[in-house]
Amino acid sequence: MNEFELIRRCFHRAHHGASVIVGNGDDAAVFATPPGRQTVISVDALIAGRHVPSICPPEGFAARLLGRGLSDLAAMGADPRYVLLSLTLPSFDAAWVDQFAEKFHQLAVQWGVDLIGGDTSRGPLAAHLTAIGEVNSGAALTRSGAVAGDGLWLLGRDLGGARAYLEVLDAEIPENPVWAERYWRPEPMLDAGRALSGVAHAAIDISDGLCQDLGHVLDAASAPLKISIDSQALPIAPGLLAQFDEHQALEFALTGGDDYCLLAAIAKAEDAPAGAVCLGYFEAAEHPEILLDSEPLPSDWQLGWDHSR
Amino acid sequence: MNEFELIRRCFHRAHHGASVIVGNGDDAAVFATPPGRQTVISVDALIAGRHVPSICPPEGFAARLLGRGLSDLAAMGADPRYVLLSLTLPSFDAAWVDQFAEKFHQLAVQWGVDLIGGDTSRGPLAAHLTAIGEVNSGAALTRSGAVAGDGLWLLGRDLGGARAYLEVLDAEIPENPVWAERYWRPEPMLDAGRALSGVAHAAIDISDGLCQDLGHVLDAASAPLKISIDSQALPIAPGLLAQFDEHQALEFALTGGDDYCLLAAIAKAEDAPAGAVCLGYFEAAEHPEILLDSEPLPSDWQLGWDHSR
Repeated sequence: MNEFELIRRCFHRAHHGASVIVGNGDDAAVFATPPGRQTVISVDALIAGRHVPSICPPEGFAARLLGRGLSDLAAMGADPRYVLLSLTLPSFDAAWVDQFAEKFHQLAVQWGVDLIGGDTSRGPLAAHLTAIGEVNSGAALTRSGAVAGDGLWLLGRDLGGARAYLEVLDAEIPENPVWAERYWRPEPMLDAGRALSGVAHAAIDISDGLCQDLGHVLDAASAPLKISIDSQALPIAPGLLAQFDEHQALEFALTGGDDYCLLAAIAKAEDAPAGAVCLGYFEAAEHPEILLDSEPLPSDWQLGWDHSR
Repeated sequence: MNEFELIRRCFHRAHHGASVIVGNGDDAAVFATPPGRQTVISVDALIAGRHVPSICPPEGFAARLLGRGLSDLAAMGADPRYVLLSLTLPSFDAAWVDQFAEKFHQLAVQWGVDLIGGDTSRGPLAAHLTAIGEVNSGAALTRSGAVAGDGLWLLGRDLGGARAYLEVLDAEIPENPVWAERYWRPEPMLDAGRALSGVAHAAIDISDGLCQDLGHVLDAASAPLKISIDSQALPIAPGLLAQFDEHQALEFALTGGDDYCLLAAIAKAEDAPAGAVCLGYFEAAEHPEILLDSEPLPSDWQLGWDHSR
C-alpha cells in the first residue's frame, strides 16, 4: 500500500445517507435528489501561503476549508448534503493528514455533509472543496433581486475579526481569541440562510469584505441602487475598537473579508430573522453606490468592488 | 477591474441549458435533475509539473483536464451535464488564459457540458475539475460486480500511447503524432460508456494503467477473481512496437496510464458494444490475480495495484 492509498483511507468513512447511491471510492459518486428539490453547488480553493499561512495547522485548514465552502450554500438558503475534496499535499506527513481528516469528518458530521468523492495529488498544500446542497425547487437565494425600499440586513457577528487576526499572524499585535476563532473556525450561517429562504429578495455571504460583497448585490440588481450603511449598527468584533483607531476598525469591519456573515435584502422589517440587524435601506440611484453614514467611503480603503478606483 | 475579474470574464459564457436554474457568477450554481435520473459527480486534479509538464500549452492543459474529468463520467455510463473549474494561476498571462478558456469552452460544447461555477486563485498552475453527469436511476456502472465467467472487454484504442509520449517529452525519442494526441487530447469514451449501461457488470476507465485499474475491478468484486490477459488482443498504440522492444511496449500498454479507454466485465459476448475487444475471462481464484498470456506479470513492471509488491 502506498502513501496515497493510506491518505485515501483516512477519508473513507462510510456514514453515507440513503440518498448516496455510490459513495467515495468508485470513478464517481452517485446521489439521488428528491422530487421538488434542486441541487446547489459551488467550488472553493484554499491555498496555503495565500488564503492561510504556508505552515498551517491541520485542524484550522480543515475548519476554514469546510466553513468557507458551506457558507456559499448558506448564502443560497440551501441544506448542505455532500462534499468532494481535491487535496494536494507537499509531502507525506501522516500526523498532519490524520488530524486534518479527523477535524474534517467531525465538522462534516456536525454540519450534515457526506464526503462522497475526492482526489489526492502531490503538490503545494492546497484544497479545493466542492460543496453540494439542496433547496426546494425555485427557492434558492441569489445575489440579484434587491430593489429600492428593501432593508439591508446582516446576519452574524464579529465583523472584521478575521481581518484583525491577520495582524496577529503578522505578529504586530497580541492574540485575541475571538479573532482567532473567526479566522480558523468560520461558522457557516446555515440556519440563518434557511430562514432567509422565501423572505429575502437577495442574499450573499461576506467572504471578500462587506462592501465588496454588497457591491456584488448592487451590481446584480436590475436597476441602479445606492445604500448608506449605518456604522452604529455594525456588529464589529470585540476588541477591534480597543486595539485599533475607529477608522481602522471600521475599515476592517467593512472591507476585511472572511467574516462569513450573510447579507440580505428584505422588503419588510418584520420578516427579518431573529438576531439580524438592519444596516440601511436600498434607494434608487443613478449609479450603484455604497455610502457610510451618508458620506462617501474613505478614499484610502482598499475596495475591490469599486470599479471606478 | 482587476485581473481576476478579467479571468472570470473569460469563463463566463451564457449558453446554459434549461436545467440550469442559477449559472456561473452567484455564490453557488443551481440545477434541476429530472425525475427518474440520478446525479453522478467526480473531482480530478491536474497539477503542472506532476500530471503535465511545468510549462504547459494552454490548449493541452484544457483538453487533458476536461478529457480526464469526463472519462470518469463515461466509466459510470453517465451523460455529462455540468462542470465546475477551480483554477490556480502563477501569474497573469492574458494570452495563456484566453487560449485555455477558448479550448475549454470548445470542448465543453463538443462534449455537452455547461460550466456552471468555479474559483480562481493565485498559485502554482493547477486545475481541479468537478464533473457532473446524469444516469437513469439505478443504472450507474460501478467497479464492483464482475463475476467468474464474465469477459473482460476493452473499449478504446492506442494503449500505451500516452505513456510513450512521456519519453518524447523527455526528448529521448522522436515525436509521434498519435502519442501526442493521446496525451494532450484524451477523448472521453462517452458513447461507449452509455452503451455499457445495463450491459456491463462492472466498468472502469483506464487512468492509472490497465493492470492497476483492472486490479481495482478485482478488488471490488464480491469473490476473488483471476484473469489472464491475451496480449494479442491488446490494441497497442501504433509505433510502439517499432520504437520499443516488445517487453517495453507491453509494459507501456498495460501499466502506462492516461489511456482513458474503458474496461468492462460483460457476461455475454453478444452484449459487448461494437468495436470492443475481449482481453480474457474472469475466473474464480483463491486471491485476486492478473496474468499475461497465462504467465505471471513481469516482475520488473511498476504496478501500483499489486499490493504484494
